[in-house]
Amino acid sequence: MSERMIALIAAATFTIITHTAPLHAYDGVVEKKTFTLQSYVTVRGETIKNVKIGWESYGSLNADKSNAILITHYFSGTSHAAGKYKANDPAPGYWDKIIGPGKPLDTDKYFILSSDTLVNLGAKDPNVITTGPATIDSSTGQPYGRSFPIVAIRDFVNVQKALVESLGISKLHAVMGASMGALQAYEWSSSYPGMVRKVIPVIGAGEADGWVIAWSHMWAAPILLDPNWSNGDYYGKAEPVAGLATALALVTLHAQHWEWTNSNNPPAFGRKWAIEGKDPAGCLVECKYAIEAALDAMGKTRASMSDANHFLYLVKAGQIFVAGGGNLLDGLKKIDAPVLLITSDDDLIFPPDAVNQTAQMIKSDGTLVEQVKIKGGRGHLDGVYAIDQAGDRIVEFLGRK
Amino acid sequence: MSERMIALIAAATFTIITHTAPLHAYDGVVEKKTFTLQSYVTVRGETIKNVKIGWESYGSLNADKSNAILITHYFSGTSHAAGKYKANDPAPGYWDKIIGPGKPLDTDKYFILSSDTLVNLGAKDPNVITTGPATIDSSTGQPYGRSFPIVAIRDFVNVQKALVESLGISKLHAVMGASMGALQAYEWSSSYPGMVRKVIPVIGAGEADGWVIAWSHMWAAPILLDPNWSNGDYYGKAEPVAGLATALALVTLHAQHWEWTNSNNPPAFGRKWAIEGKDPAGCLVECKYAIEAALDAMGKTRASMSDANHFLYLVKAGQIFVAGGGNLLDGLKKIDAPVLLITSDDDLIFPPDAVNQTAQMIKSDGTLVEQVKIKGGRGHLDGVYAIDQAGDRIVEFLGRK
Repeated sequence: MSERMIALIAAATFTIITHTAPLHAYDGVVEKKTFTLQSYVTVRGETIKNVKIGWESYGSLNADKSNAILITHYFSGTSHAAGKYKANDPAPGYWDKIIGPGKPLDTDKYFILSSDTLVNLGAKDPNVITTGPATIDSSTGQPYGRSFPIVAIRDFVNVQKALVESLGISKLHAVMGASMGALQAYEWSSSYPGMVRKVIPVIGAGEADGWVIAWSHMWAAPILLDPNWSNGDYYGKAEPVAGLATALALVTLHAQHWEWTNSNNPPAFGRKWAIEGKDPAGCLVECKYAIEAALDAMGKTRASMSDANHFLYLVKAGQIFVAGGGNLLDGLKKIDAPVLLITSDDDLIFPPDAVNQTAQMIKSDGTLVEQVKIKGGRGHLDGVYAIDQAGDRIVEFLGRK
Repeated sequence: MSERMIALIAAATFTIITHTAPLHAYDGVVEKKTFTLQSYVTVRGETIKNVKIGWESYGSLNADKSNAILITHYFSGTSHAAGKYKANDPAPGYWDKIIGPGKPLDTDKYFILSSDTLVNLGAKDPNVITTGPATIDSSTGQPYGRSFPIVAIRDFVNVQKALVESLGISKLHAVMGASMGALQAYEWSSSYPGMVRKVIPVIGAGEADGWVIAWSHMWAAPILLDPNWSNGDYYGKAEPVAGLATALALVTLHAQHWEWTNSNNPPAFGRKWAIEGKDPAGCLVECKYAIEAALDAMGKTRASMSDANHFLYLVKAGQIFVAGGGNLLDGLKKIDAPVLLITSDDDLIFPPDAVNQTAQMIKSDGTLVEQVKIKGGRGHLDGVYAIDQAGDRIVEFLGRK
């Protein structure tokens, strides 16, 4: 038997095995892996050496590598879309409701892949692997700080593309992401239409319009007010934690809805006082309502895992985003894959008008766009917390020939 | 002829004269006046000496003093509701579209009165007269700073009541105000139902709910981040201008709508660059879109006329507000005067759900509530810029027996 024959038989056997049962059935325990690019040139022509991003996967890649679905994460998100690192983790990944065996993103059928972006906000999160201003520049031995180049959503996608190709995947069954993850999904399908079979953008539009630009400008403003920000040169010194915490509290509130702040369901904010017996009318700053204390606490908790410069770089990446990189209509017309657009009419970051405009532009040359509206009382964050409302539609869309 | 007869004839003559023609027809030129209270005790029991607030009026008070309409101002507003101080002022008062001869608030019929509140934001505006933390405390010769007592919307109303009574007015034909001015209108009609014949709350609800508390907390946060705030003790030193400017930019954006940021009408923000040829992608902080530069400029301009502590005191007054001072339903049921509620469904500060709840509660004991929806593409600020859309309804409502 020739070597070539042996190789062919081996390949055929391998194919049969993987088609009858997944090599490693997904059991909800996940592991963070690292993808490294020795050198990457940004869309603006700057070179970054030794680019690392984290990624995780759920389910198994099939033999012809045709069952991969890429999950792209939101502004303050990470690659941890599902499962737990250890059985006693307090919470699973953010879309665990829809990722797993028998769930809409069925790990018995699909190989789900989720990656950290460049300049990921959670630079101090031990489960995030990213490259950005807080990363040590090997040429100086110091963090890049503001010498790190400005990166675009396309750069996030290009690094993901290198990861996907390193796994031997030439075509993704789908790209799906929420918010900033939706921007990546649009960018993938516009810039690399031959590599994406289906697209599921969630709570996002095809560009940062004036509203997104304006609001993300306001999100960033508290960081610039914090004297510890020091024009971005704060590594090894006191960091702008207070400014970053305020920025994160502001993002948190903007991503919510009045149904959340006014809900009578626990934690029942409304006009509830932060501390029983301490009337908020009793003093100017320190006497608070429960919702004020909750926002402050959320901001602080998130800030402890985050980097202020990464926040600013993410804001910039979002603001400069137009799918395809030029005119919005041209960029969206490059999308050929069918689109399942999942949004909430209560979204105050990407409101219905912006989402509808995007849908119309993609459809304008005959590309299929289906819309699913979800409603969970959390505004923009319905796309995270109420994503299971779209479960049946996701199953049908992904399974359709 | 007895003295009593002479007095009666004089009174009758006076009545005839004032009914045939206004003593001083309003010609669009207005004058700021000052009302002083030697001493005022707040609803929380603190005494403030020598309270001064500014006020202006348009039209003439009739003989039986029955034609007075009080205008109460919004968060960043002043008593300058109409007219100009000098013919060459760049702009008239904020509701000039509806106040004047033949306009909905017809100065040929009504005596329109508009007053500054306590702790008015514009402490540095030469046309604002107010008493607050930036005022000199006569007992120390220094600005009050944070020794100024916390004041409530009811305190604003109580000082206005003293002003109204000083003019011999025992019953107002109407109280009308936008946003924080609506809160004052609710408070007037709930706390002093015998003094208010009609109420016109514009873009406001009967209490600060969790949403308003949460957002106003975020508005205030940038001030607290500014090291120059110094816990409120900054008078005579460098002031927290940067924090105040950011706070005001944030309020400005929150009071707007995506139809404004995304409009193609001049100044046409959208994705327009701040400076032609300076790509916002070219640098992290200094390279901006037009909407970012506009918000920054608006914040700075407003900050130059404003006081940071006054901002914080206004936030607190708003947050602790429930019409009538106790349970919301009880407070709103105390309102007996007919209510014309003017709101925008695009309002992101007092959204439709909150406004509708307020309307239902006032109606619940049979009080007449009529709603007018206006829409001008400016969100909350429709209540200022598009108020003329409600003009005919205001005329009919005010003129009805």
